[in-house]
Amino acid sequence: MESNKKIPSPVAKRLALYHRCVETLLRAGKEMVSSKELGDRLSIKSSQIRKDLSYFGGFGKRGTGYNLHSLKDALENIMGINRTWNIGVVGAGNIGTALANYEGLLKDGYKVVALFDKNEKKVGKVVGTRRVPIYHVNELCEKIKELSIEIGVIAVPAEYAQSVADKLTNCAEIKGLVNFAPVKIYTHHVELEDVDISVSFKSLTFKIWGGFLGRK
Amino acid sequence: MESNKKIPSPVAKRLALYHRCVETLLRAGKEMVSSKELGDRLSIKSSQIRKDLSYFGGFGKRGTGYNLHSLKDALENIMGINRTWNIGVVGAGNIGTALANYEGLLKDGYKVVALFDKNEKKVGKVVGTRRVPIYHVNELCEKIKELSIEIGVIAVPAEYAQSVADKLTNCAEIKGLVNFAPVKIYTHHVELEDVDISVSFKSLTFKIWGGFLGRK
Repeated sequence: MESNKKIPSPVAKRLALYHRCVETLLRAGKEMVSSKELGDRLSIKSSQIRKDLSYFGGFGKRGTGYNLHSLKDALENIMGINRTWNIGVVGAGNIGTALANYEGLLKDGYKVVALFDKNEKKVGKVVGTRRVPIYHVNELCEKIKELSIEIGVIAVPAEYAQSVADKLTNCAEIKGLVNFAPVKIYTHHVELEDVDISVSFKSLTFKIWGGFLGRK
Repeated sequence: MESNKKIPSPVAKRLALYHRCVETLLRAGKEMVSSKELGDRLSIKSSQIRKDLSYFGGFGKRGTGYNLHSLKDALENIMGINRTWNIGVVGAGNIGTALANYEGLLKDGYKVVALFDKNEKKVGKVVGTRRVPIYHVNELCEKIKELSIEIGVIAVPAEYAQSVADKLTNCAEIKGLVNFAPVKIYTHHVELEDVDISVSFKSLTFKIWGGFLGRK
């Protein structure tokens, strides 16, 4: 297989959406899915879906569609979900705590193994039913190495996000960052995904608001 | 202006990304931005950006680019950010609590005014510095009307998400839903945005993992 670096980023996001939809269909007891049904469920053109999946060799058969179990396995192989990724979260506030407890991550092999904070009152405590420990940010690279953490999460206020990103990327073991702060950050040498919660709300109210404008 | 219903959903998401980037540039003291700079920062083609913004009449001048203040105002008008949206969150767990405290929402006019839960121990308490009250889900439609809530948020475990969505859409005042549960849900008559946190992690590890595959 060629390096996925050549595959555009929106494809990565769509593959993740396909994976979620495949899981939902399997839970509903289904065995097969057509590119049309996937497309209808995700509001993505079926031709786009066939093209995306063809990057990795064809799983589907014309007429019968995709076997959901094979498709799930193939997507998990492609996305590295068939292994565990240890995650360190900087910021033991509401978002950090929510992530340490989020079942939706753990079931896909994303395991928050440490939280980091600069607040001495939080350091030394544990969070949630899995009792994830909170360490001081001064111990960041040391604990990242010790706990085999490869993914860093930024869950601090916007004004500290870039400096936390810089600190995380200075730890040799970090391969990628997920940023929850509502600000654009910049990284070198590691992959980055932004999760801006307000973008989803803006996108929603644009659709609602646009509807009103149209009705005037 | 024509109804925005005709504007494709990915445009809505990109407009929200432009808005965030414009805010970042304004905070950095900038006055103008070119479609090329916006494009470089967001990994979106500059031709796509010019096309998106042209939906709403041209703000930009060839050669000098966009005035950031005008662009911000225009985007906020388009997306309905220049007003307050009252939000009710079903599920007073970690995610619900994080949302009630998330500054990134409040600054754009998205105000969590109520949490709802079925756990009697949580009902009657308040959350965070803004002291957002927790009501029983049995009072859902009543409080939604009383508090002028137009947006419902689903922050419950996956297995309850669809039934919560159905309950919310049964309340006449609800115009849109934001779903944080890691499962695909279906709605009629109201707009829907999915926030699946695991999608961002999957997309990230696909990029990291693909890099490894390529190096083998």
